[in-house]
Amino acid sequence: MTQQPPHTEAAVLLSRYRQVRDRSLNLIEGLTPEDCQLQSIAEASPLKWHLAHTSWFFETFILAALAQPPAPFDPAFKVLFNSYYVGVGDRHARPERGMLSRPTLEQVLAYRCHVDQHMQQALAAADMPAEQVALVELGLNHEQQHQELMLTDLKHHFSRNPLFPAWRETGDDQRAGSGATAERLHCNGGLVDIGHAGRGFCYDNELPRHRVWLEPFSLASRNVTNGEYLAFIRDGGYQRSELWLSDGWDQVCSEGWHAPLYWQHHDAGWQVFTLHGLQPLNEDATLSHVSFYEADAYARWAGARLPTEAEWEYAASEEQRLEGLFDEVWQWCNSAYLPYPGFQPAAGAVGEYNGKFMINQMVLRGGSLATPTGHSRASYRNFFPAWARWQFSGVRLAWDSV
Amino acid sequence: MTQQPPHTEAAVLLSRYRQVRDRSLNLIEGLTPEDCQLQSIAEASPLKWHLAHTSWFFETFILAALAQPPAPFDPAFKVLFNSYYVGVGDRHARPERGMLSRPTLEQVLAYRCHVDQHMQQALAAADMPAEQVALVELGLNHEQQHQELMLTDLKHHFSRNPLFPAWRETGDDQRAGSGATAERLHCNGGLVDIGHAGRGFCYDNELPRHRVWLEPFSLASRNVTNGEYLAFIRDGGYQRSELWLSDGWDQVCSEGWHAPLYWQHHDAGWQVFTLHGLQPLNEDATLSHVSFYEADAYARWAGARLPTEAEWEYAASEEQRLEGLFDEVWQWCNSAYLPYPGFQPAAGAVGEYNGKFMINQMVLRGGSLATPTGHSRASYRNFFPAWARWQFSGVRLAWDSV
Amino acid sequence: MTQQPPHTEAAVLLSRYRQVRDRSLNLIEGLTPEDCQLQSIAEASPLKWHLAHTSWFFETFILAALAQPPAPFDPAFKVLFNSYYVGVGDRHARPERGMLSRPTLEQVLAYRCHVDQHMQQALAAADMPAEQVALVELGLNHEQQHQELMLTDLKHHFSRNPLFPAWRETGDDQRAGSGATAERLHCNGGLVDIGHAGRGFCYDNELPRHRVWLEPFSLASRNVTNGEYLAFIRDGGYQRSELWLSDGWDQVCSEGWHAPLYWQHHDAGWQVFTLHGLQPLNEDATLSHVSFYEADAYARWAGARLPTEAEWEYAASEEQRLEGLFDEVWQWCNSAYLPYPGFQPAAGAVGEYNGKFMINQMVLRGGSLATPTGHSRASYRNFFPAWARWQFSGVRLAWDSV
Amino acid sequence: MTQQPPHTEAAVLLSRYRQVRDRSLNLIEGLTPEDCQLQSIAEASPLKWHLAHTSWFFETFILAALAQPPAPFDPAFKVLFNSYYVGVGDRHARPERGMLSRPTLEQVLAYRCHVDQHMQQALAAADMPAEQVALVELGLNHEQQHQELMLTDLKHHFSRNPLFPAWRETGDDQRAGSGATAERLHCNGGLVDIGHAGRGFCYDNELPRHRVWLEPFSLASRNVTNGEYLAFIRDGGYQRSELWLSDGWDQVCSEGWHAPLYWQHHDAGWQVFTLHGLQPLNEDATLSHVSFYEADAYARWAGARLPTEAEWEYAASEEQRLEGLFDEVWQWCNSAYLPYPGFQPAAGAVGEYNGKFMINQMVLRGGSLATPTGHSRASYRNFFPAWARWQFSGVRLAWDSV
Repeated sequence: MTQQPPHTEAAVLLSRYRQVRDRSLNLIEGLTPEDCQLQSIAEASPLKWHLAHTSWFFETFILAALAQPPAPFDPAFKVLFNSYYVGVGDRHARPERGMLSRPTLEQVLAYRCHVDQHMQQALAAADMPAEQVALVELGLNHEQQHQELMLTDLKHHFSRNPLFPAWRETGDDQRAGSGATAERLHCNGGLVDIGHAGRGFCYDNELPRHRVWLEPFSLASRNVTNGEYLAFIRDGGYQRSELWLSDGWDQVCSEGWHAPLYWQHHDAGWQVFTLHGLQPLNEDATLSHVSFYEADAYARWAGARLPTEAEWEYAASEEQRLEGLFDEVWQWCNSAYLPYPGFQPAAGAVGEYNGKFMINQMVLRGGSLATPTGHSRASYRNFFPAWARWQFSGVRLAWDSV
Repeated sequence: MTQQPPHTEAAVLLSRYRQVRDRSLNLIEGLTPEDCQLQSIAEASPLKWHLAHTSWFFETFILAALAQPPAPFDPAFKVLFNSYYVGVGDRHARPERGMLSRPTLEQVLAYRCHVDQHMQQALAAADMPAEQVALVELGLNHEQQHQELMLTDLKHHFSRNPLFPAWRETGDDQRAGSGATAERLHCNGGLVDIGHAGRGFCYDNELPRHRVWLEPFSLASRNVTNGEYLAFIRDGGYQRSELWLSDGWDQVCSEGWHAPLYWQHHDAGWQVFTLHGLQPLNEDATLSHVSFYEADAYARWAGARLPTEAEWEYAASEEQRLEGLFDEVWQWCNSAYLPYPGFQPAAGAVGEYNGKFMINQMVLRGGSLATPTGHSRASYRNFFPAWARWQFSGVRLAWDSV
Repeated sequence: MTQQPPHTEAAVLLSRYRQVRDRSLNLIEGLTPEDCQLQSIAEASPLKWHLAHTSWFFETFILAALAQPPAPFDPAFKVLFNSYYVGVGDRHARPERGMLSRPTLEQVLAYRCHVDQHMQQALAAADMPAEQVALVELGLNHEQQHQELMLTDLKHHFSRNPLFPAWRETGDDQRAGSGATAERLHCNGGLVDIGHAGRGFCYDNELPRHRVWLEPFSLASRNVTNGEYLAFIRDGGYQRSELWLSDGWDQVCSEGWHAPLYWQHHDAGWQVFTLHGLQPLNEDATLSHVSFYEADAYARWAGARLPTEAEWEYAASEEQRLEGLFDEVWQWCNSAYLPYPGFQPAAGAVGEYNGKFMINQMVLRGGSLATPTGHSRASYRNFFPAWARWQFSGVRLAWDSV
Repeated sequence: MTQQPPHTEAAVLLSRYRQVRDRSLNLIEGLTPEDCQLQSIAEASPLKWHLAHTSWFFETFILAALAQPPAPFDPAFKVLFNSYYVGVGDRHARPERGMLSRPTLEQVLAYRCHVDQHMQQALAAADMPAEQVALVELGLNHEQQHQELMLTDLKHHFSRNPLFPAWRETGDDQRAGSGATAERLHCNGGLVDIGHAGRGFCYDNELPRHRVWLEPFSLASRNVTNGEYLAFIRDGGYQRSELWLSDGWDQVCSEGWHAPLYWQHHDAGWQVFTLHGLQPLNEDATLSHVSFYEADAYARWAGARLPTEAEWEYAASEEQRLEGLFDEVWQWCNSAYLPYPGFQPAAGAVGEYNGKFMINQMVLRGGSLATPTGHSRASYRNFFPAWARWQFSGVRLAWDSV
């Protein structure tokens, strides 16, 4: 670390703490207590729960350790707002989160105030040990992750209401790129280093940095657009089993998939449900809300393939001409979410953060329009099951190079 | 009908309308918008939905026919708050009712005001045709049914929250009877008349009044108590398959039933979740929240049986010494919910009210502590599937008499 | 009973025993061991299982009591071939019956021989106590019931094979009636006696004979035909929710029902899968393989209703002009399968035969082309869930009479 | 290829064809037609189906192309015995395979004879084009894979019968190793080549051979034994969530896992169901029938990890001291089954063989006691979902090396 006076570091962290925490509140502006309680599927939590859980994280891993305050805000919250940390004790079942009308939103906001007040006192003291500082940093990154989930979850919750409510009346979550033609950018590959480098924050799953051999490959200069995906649909993409992985085809048939999540076919053409209500499909915008299965089938149809996460990370670091890496959609990789060679989970309960999910999930790289500014980096490993579609997830094509 | 001047009848109906409608609002006093949106199972609706649906009934069947006002409050409500009236058009799927954060509770209350205002105008006009008056009366009885459901549904919703919230802090939904010893009251039976008689309101399923032959039987003077049921539990009632109907035993095994719904076994003894929070089990109170399967198994264990609905109705009309018929728990009958001889559903969409549910349900008779005053009568046929336990449903024993 | 010398009675019973037992073997003629092991749904058992279970009944309830022979044929069979008699001990799970490749068909046939040999010795002895004789009679009726199930189950098993195998190459299970026009036969009703009378065999559920009051009604002189049902289909019967009970409509939608079980729509017209392979639909034949839901919807469409079981039994006893009561299809009644007033289950394990199934089932009356000769009578109560279609079940219409 | 005279090559292939095909028949010796029809789970097929499907492969991909004979043995078999080759047309649903009593085992054996006769004629002709020869070779390897499945599937089918039938009365499928202490064998890693090399047969998923960078690691000299796994069980392995991947723990809880598949805890100690009936657990034998989840949890408990497939393959090629690589159990790797860089599926319908399953599965390496001799090689990639336990699958530990 740079040789800043300690009080400056503390001031920076305090300022960052306030900024991140405020943004969570900003996200629910204009929403009702009822909106914040919705839970449409087990995988997507109520916004109220996100607000409480992120506070629970600071209370449990920082304040409780400091014994400041000596008692928890409400002992019941320990169970209610634990997500999956078995090491911390019992937890309320995930699909039941929408059943919690109590505590009310108002009480949860009071909980946040309480936690913030004590956290700010703790941060203002210049002598926080490095280990605690690291946990605060983890908590802030954790909160930023949940900020993205607040938007993707809310979008799903609202999509189940035939009135199609809008989070914000103005704006657009169909993000158009530069409009430039997609180019195939060649990468030589070879023996490259992958994983987080440098002194900034990263999750344990981005470590250790390690060597990987890459054959030559090409990567598309931009993400696939809605218009390009529409050509796949019109070419019978959802009816041609030969384009799909076996599990993907089963999913298409059992779920009746015929377009990305949130696309609706009306007489007047395609409409898309967005965070800003129903909108006409923008063909120039970046394709979003597709599963790994759809991403993979599209790539096969297009005579391409999905990149591996190592290819993606290497290219993202080396190639300047790539558009939309971090600000449009997460990009599905044909890599399973597994530990890097030499991976060690963090010590203590926070070691449950990443490692125990390393099965049955595929990696996504980059970031989306819902990712908080400053939260993305090339080594970041996002992960979801192959069927998941409620994230802002899209496609960047890759090819073998000769 | 008696020969009252029309304006008096209208005034009476108007007054009754106000009284019934006000009571629905009274039921949600002290609840938050979040409480009113909870939906814990498909069969139990959010309170907000009940409030809207009962208003939808008046808007659809009265105001729309009168074209007063000329347009609906919100055209979308036609679909959102239709329960099952296929004749009226599309409806929103029942298990999705908890997904409606919009309209908000506030908007639903405005909808009620709007409907009430126009209904009161219509009722104040002295010339409402008899057919409309009958529909208003149906609507009020319909609303009273939903008032009972508001309480039973809320109890179930709240029971899923580990904080065990209370609807009202004070009060008791464990209703103790007189404490008198249960007696076997003998009835001669014979050829008796069953079904609604007289000029008051009844549902179509209570008609036509018809003759039924009854063999001599006895009926218990009061309902089974918690203490009596506890003896059944302690005698291994939930472990002895020979006491159960085959489907009941399957349910016991697959659901892990070991006590009535809402009973919890703690180290300190049995606790019961009530509308007033967790309370110690009152052994003198009337048993509640048992399924038909449990009622039937208990009766077999006790060397008795459940009454048929004709026995119940006949005894309720003839025998003065019966306690707790209408104000404790609905009493399961060993009668399937089927049409009476000569049954004709009401004409029009309201004909969907009762007839189409006449399969796979058992009859309950009487009324419960949650039934609005004045809503009960001896000919009333309530009905639920044999597995249902979230109503205030209990047991009155019967025996063959020699 | 007539005053025959005891040895004659024994000889008659022995002869009847041989005849009934032989018929079971006759039913599997031409079938392979593989055919006899098929189990297509949990509710339909393999034929091998039926053959073993009916033998188990005699071994368990007669031979074991006589201790002749002193030891069971194979102790494991006690569990494997118990159907549901909890009083007799453990039993093998019903949906797993198709998993029993061992014992082989050959071994099961040897088991039958063994049981028959000892049963015939026991029957030849002229001193069998009346209680045992009654159990033998029960066992024979039990076997006859299973003979009907062997045919209906096999039909279902075979229907799942795209080769559509035939049980017998020649013959027909589309049974045509006389071709006469259906007439409405009027019955006065009144206070009538229902339930088994006389000294012949009956099940416990047909007792006690008791009085029932019937309003005047009419019953169709014959069962509904395929051609009549086709008119219902062509009139949109499966698309019109107003014709269906609510649960029936849910079933139609979730299962995609559009015709009776075994009907297939080909370009060349309707085909029907029968015990004799695929055949063109015979419009003059009696409608079969419909659920209660379909029977009820058809009746509503036809401006009629289903009879109650008391109406059916009374008319079957009193009215000479009824066709196809016992030899075409079981006729769905709008009566739930519940105990008669004063019902007492038989003592001992055979008391589990009927009573514990008295919930969630509807009554069928009469008999079908698959019912063994001599097994039918007017008081016989068959029962299946409202959704069941794999029996030879059809429709006889009824009407209220003025 | 070596410069052998063509007729010699043809003779070798013909001889190999006979040998492989005969072995399939050998596997069903002593089994009844009923045994060969069992299907206990959707994933495990009846043996009769395996016998028919492997013949269908030769008929479809070789004989049909040669038009020898000009017509198929039975046109219906094209659908019935297609496993998943969408390119070849319709197929019979996998979970329904146990419903095929027809064709009988006898007919399927006649089908095999027919196919063999024509295949041997075709193979005897010295002029088979190289492309056909390659398909024959693929067909033989395909049949060998099914031979292993015949044993693993039969074991599962038989395990559902409370009589616990034996495939062979004598023998043992608890395979004990040398009894030597497990050693950690160090491998330097580095930039190594992985994938099939040389001219022998391999599947498309083993290609192309490509470079992979490996960090230094150690591999256990032998597989984990039953006794070692018992220590894990006794140490609460199945009760300690911290040892498990999140999905694995969910599986443990929902399925009630407490030991490997086929282990039964009796009063007298652990018994194991084997292909030779129930046997006492042999603690010295190699652990088998564990899922990936169990393998992974065991490794974590043991302070080790599972090898990656590249580590396994490299060590298997380089290290002489490894026991039990191919003849005990398949060894779970912490590698998802994904395409190698530059992977190209084979052309035509046989291209559906491997590629479309490259999702949601983990790789196993080596071979088992059920793998046909000569079918194994170091580059072979077997794959199953992480929950699968009915294969002979076990654990070889690995460690990071410094």
